[in-house]
Amino acid sequence: MWDYEIFNIDSLPLQSGTTLREAKLAYKTYGRLNAARDNVVVLPTFFGGQHTQNEGMIGEGRALDPSKYFIIVPNMFGNSVSTSPSNATPPYNRARFPNVSLYDNVSAQHRLITQVFGIEKIALVTGWSMGGQQTYQWGSLYPDMVERILPICTSARTSRHNFVFLEGVKAAITADDAWMGGSYEKPPLKGLRAMGRVYAGWAVSQAFYREEVYLELGYESLEDYLVNFWEARRINADANDLLAMVWTWQNADISNNEIYNGDFKKALGAIKARAIVMPGRTDLYFPPEDNELEVAQMPNAELRPIESIWGHLAGGPGFNPVDSKFMDDAINEILAN
Amino acid sequence: MWDYEIFNIDSLPLQSGTTLREAKLAYKTYGRLNAARDNVVVLPTFFGGQHTQNEGMIGEGRALDPSKYFIIVPNMFGNSVSTSPSNATPPYNRARFPNVSLYDNVSAQHRLITQVFGIEKIALVTGWSMGGQQTYQWGSLYPDMVERILPICTSARTSRHNFVFLEGVKAAITADDAWMGGSYEKPPLKGLRAMGRVYAGWAVSQAFYREEVYLELGYESLEDYLVNFWEARRINADANDLLAMVWTWQNADISNNEIYNGDFKKALGAIKARAIVMPGRTDLYFPPEDNELEVAQMPNAELRPIESIWGHLAGGPGFNPVDSKFMDDAINEILAN
Repeated sequence: MWDYEIFNIDSLPLQSGTTLREAKLAYKTYGRLNAARDNVVVLPTFFGGQHTQNEGMIGEGRALDPSKYFIIVPNMFGNSVSTSPSNATPPYNRARFPNVSLYDNVSAQHRLITQVFGIEKIALVTGWSMGGQQTYQWGSLYPDMVERILPICTSARTSRHNFVFLEGVKAAITADDAWMGGSYEKPPLKGLRAMGRVYAGWAVSQAFYREEVYLELGYESLEDYLVNFWEARRINADANDLLAMVWTWQNADISNNEIYNGDFKKALGAIKARAIVMPGRTDLYFPPEDNELEVAQMPNAELRPIESIWGHLAGGPGFNPVDSKFMDDAINEILAN
Repeated sequence: MWDYEIFNIDSLPLQSGTTLREAKLAYKTYGRLNAARDNVVVLPTFFGGQHTQNEGMIGEGRALDPSKYFIIVPNMFGNSVSTSPSNATPPYNRARFPNVSLYDNVSAQHRLITQVFGIEKIALVTGWSMGGQQTYQWGSLYPDMVERILPICTSARTSRHNFVFLEGVKAAITADDAWMGGSYEKPPLKGLRAMGRVYAGWAVSQAFYREEVYLELGYESLEDYLVNFWEARRINADANDLLAMVWTWQNADISNNEIYNGDFKKALGAIKARAIVMPGRTDLYFPPEDNELEVAQMPNAELRPIESIWGHLAGGPGFNPVDSKFMDDAINEILAN
């Protein structure tokens, strides 16, 4: 039993020049579209996450309350639910999966939202990490449609340092011979575990480890946390799917399209939406400094860092109650205006 | 032709409980020991570095001027010059190399300096990164001998976060099947290259990449820098040697010995030397915060961050002229007092 819907796209032309046929954009909705069609929230998914993981931001009494809002969670291509290397129609499956860009994702989501639901205005787009990159892309591509954006622990263009961090992630997976250039029959577990270890140092802050926050979360030791949080969340993933999402992430740039032609300032300046941009103060790969530069180019944006030692995970949906409350307050505030 | 000397240790008992026989501590000296024997500087090596790389801190007109000081550079065990997996006498060679601790290194260096040179006072111990960890260990183990220390981009105990960063480094090397548990006949090049890529994001700061400093250094692109700096510096290294040094690093703690029995504050408090502790402001794995906590426990220490976007590499011997000048000034200042 699936708990989500599929939007079928017979033919999805990609920025890379090829076409993905029989593409499936999986999505789930929460709440009801009201008569005025003005209660729409779009909440794209993050790297390695699926719609279910975004539910940590949704709920009665939360800012994203399905009794008030119609919340649409589109799954990013490559996330193993929407079309991905692991589930695509041959010949574009597995190692042959084409490069899918940030733009490709968001323009497909736009087709879903306009064609299936007839929605013309979106009250808010928000999301964490790569979900935040999609948030920025929504605001920039559809400025007359998107009224508010709240990008969390993210950037409108992947920075060079972030790119390099991801080079390490890729190298860890692909150093495993079992990966076989993507043509594995059995998962490259050694590479996936290595990726988990590489990720562990990046995703939370130095202070998170200094203060042993993982013990408060119920892990019994540092090694227990590394194995049962970081390795565990990767070994069940499909390596090609992870690598497809890494490509999307490494190449994310809201100005990389025919509208803005690489003019990043113009792509940011086009965002009419009211924006609260929320970096994590201690985020090591989406540091607040990149958002400062972005906000300076946006006509209606405020920078509001999450003061947290959770690093990148500060923005994770429901990852910790203090930061979740801080984000909920900001979402409530922006939706009230 | 060797350009260095060897101090032979027939039998080196290790903290791990075993004994390394026919251990060789390679060292090089610069300048002359004066008649008063009071011009001694000890400059231990960093991770993956050998005495030649420390020469970036030594020279006429530099703070460490061999016309004034007698500078001894002892090579850390595992660095491919002193006894290491790649050159040790069987059966303790290659994958069977025993764990060698920070204490093991510094106590062997102490034997060299007292037995070969009859030195009783050291004017200064300084070093970068793991060289700085040895610096701290010198100050704590031999407080009546060491008059000044200047640890650079380092910590007296490897933090948990730093440990986790190194887990990623290890995982990248060992994900390569060619590593064969350390029993490789041919180098595990894929793993070594992966390690280079993992390291690249950690060793310099986000701003270093944002401002494309690698272009100023003569690299023609980001990829050129990743390959010709980061991969290149690892592929010629011996994987077991790197892993031996990683073990030393991950387990570094100046209080882990019979004198201090794990009492870290006591080990820091015992340092009588005047100290200038120099973290890199943007160092991602030896962040200044850890040094702040250390300096608070040291009776005669000042924290003096290197305000640089070079991250951990800010402290690298001769890596960049601005930071080198800042460190030279501090070394001149401490030696004048």
